[in-house]
Amino acid sequence: MKKYAYGVDIGGTTVKIGFFETTGKLVDTWEIPTRTENSGELILPDIAASIKENNEKHGIEMGDIEGVGMGVPGPIKDDGTVLKCVNLGWGVFNVAQSLSVLCGGIKVKAGNDANVAALGEMWQGGGKGHQDVVMITLGTGVGGGIIREGRIVAGVNGAGGEIGHMPMVDDESECCGCGKKGCLEQYASANGLVRVAERYIAAHRDVATKLDLNAGFTAKDVCDAAKAGDAAGIAAVEQSMKLLGKAMAAVACVMDPEVFVVGGGLSKAGSIIIDTAAKYYKEYAFHASRETEIKLATLGNSAGMYGGVKMVIG
Amino acid sequence: MKKYAYGVDIGGTTVKIGFFETTGKLVDTWEIPTRTENSGELILPDIAASIKENNEKHGIEMGDIEGVGMGVPGPIKDDGTVLKCVNLGWGVFNVAQSLSVLCGGIKVKAGNDANVAALGEMWQGGGKGHQDVVMITLGTGVGGGIIREGRIVAGVNGAGGEIGHMPMVDDESECCGCGKKGCLEQYASANGLVRVAERYIAAHRDVATKLDLNAGFTAKDVCDAAKAGDAAGIAAVEQSMKLLGKAMAAVACVMDPEVFVVGGGLSKAGSIIIDTAAKYYKEYAFHASRETEIKLATLGNSAGMYGGVKMVIG
Repeated sequence: MKKYAYGVDIGGTTVKIGFFETTGKLVDTWEIPTRTENSGELILPDIAASIKENNEKHGIEMGDIEGVGMGVPGPIKDDGTVLKCVNLGWGVFNVAQSLSVLCGGIKVKAGNDANVAALGEMWQGGGKGHQDVVMITLGTGVGGGIIREGRIVAGVNGAGGEIGHMPMVDDESECCGCGKKGCLEQYASANGLVRVAERYIAAHRDVATKLDLNAGFTAKDVCDAAKAGDAAGIAAVEQSMKLLGKAMAAVACVMDPEVFVVGGGLSKAGSIIIDTAAKYYKEYAFHASRETEIKLATLGNSAGMYGGVKMVIG
Repeated sequence: MKKYAYGVDIGGTTVKIGFFETTGKLVDTWEIPTRTENSGELILPDIAASIKENNEKHGIEMGDIEGVGMGVPGPIKDDGTVLKCVNLGWGVFNVAQSLSVLCGGIKVKAGNDANVAALGEMWQGGGKGHQDVVMITLGTGVGGGIIREGRIVAGVNGAGGEIGHMPMVDDESECCGCGKKGCLEQYASANGLVRVAERYIAAHRDVATKLDLNAGFTAKDVCDAAKAGDAAGIAAVEQSMKLLGKAMAAVACVMDPEVFVVGGGLSKAGSIIIDTAAKYYKEYAFHASRETEIKLATLGNSAGMYGGVKMVIG
């Protein structure tokens, strides 16, 4: 094993690059802009140039690097072929191979960003010490990543770990971003929690609440209200996290993982989120999996860089 | 690779034994009674004696056998330790090791019977040619088995593939065998379909039906009625298979397999079962997984023997 590796997390606006020792120690991290013009043809050359520049700064060469692992925001096959990343402008090509050529032929691996982040959390974050991990990210949407025996379950169509699109509710009137109705994401994401609270308040005008429909509120406002004893806030968190707990129980009936790791902005709103989800998980879970641990993610936005490195060091 | 292997499927009443060439060819198959008296202490010696007898019949020795793979009706760890098989009388011990000792030290592997059957269907049955397979067995209950990259996903608590206990319905009044309420098995098994039909008829006395609540009916009767255009039969099959399709869509959001293989007695009631499940699967599935194939199992009660052999030949 060589001493260094790079972990790269490509987002629609910036690319996060982490320079690591292969022991897992993050030596340095920085960001470069994601240049999406001309079908995103500059993105990989920009990354390669940034890596070379960092090598020079540290007096090392490509031969000192074990490899580069990256997360991309879209579906991708195990061999590194992206199947269109709409917000990067990319079509279908082997992104791992292309970056490898630009970096003098060193090992490059690539995966879907949510899956790579899950791998990072398994390696150095909330799932450290485990090999079978289910990661759930409660952000604007609900993301997921499944790690089995230390490796990403990408799925034959790249849809492994798309937990946010598990069908949960039959009588939903609004569409999810994916085109379906009733996906977990419509209730258990930050936006989903706000939506659930708005609906609750509109349907229960008699319930006193500090959450003001006209002024609008955020998911954090809903959590803060719930923590302060606000009836509408509590009801919304209960409804939202009941569905998350139920979905997690269903996931456990499939994979039966060692641990669930929950991350994303909403998970930081305080223990009320994870505690309420855990309460309903226990209620819905098959008895053999009832005691499965639910932990908070610890790497935040760095999880993707860590996961990239773990991909190349194996 | 040696020329022969044995696949063993231990049930509560009989043990099925298959004598195979390691190419996958079933040479001979027979059954012996499962003697559950004295904490089931005779079960493994009986199997070993039966294998020796068959070896002698074919003029071969234990040294000509690649190994023995077996399915047991209960939770079991990857190393072959059973965690109590109530209907065999077994406590906690390493069943693979014990049978190996009785068979002169040859390789023995053991897995949960539903998982081993799924592996058999992947190898030589409905999932042939695939490596990522989800098997669902619609029998008295709903069993499941997840195969990922050609290997069983047993789960850390032995609950991998317990698809029958995915939480599906919130307002169920009756208990599932597992102690929870609202499990898939309560609706989509043979017993579940009968229950759904009984409830439908009781709640819709105005709907004419040939299904007679007083005389009683079977799952096959419900399917036959549905095929003949009986309104209550159709409604029951729709309700029951809608939940199965929804559960399969949720499974696809986790594993995104290449193929679903559906087996068990109810799957043989005709294409109405699998076709209705497939219709609802497409409705509930995440777009990337919508075209995932749903096939019928082909090995019937022999799937466990095939899977046992696949376990030992790897």
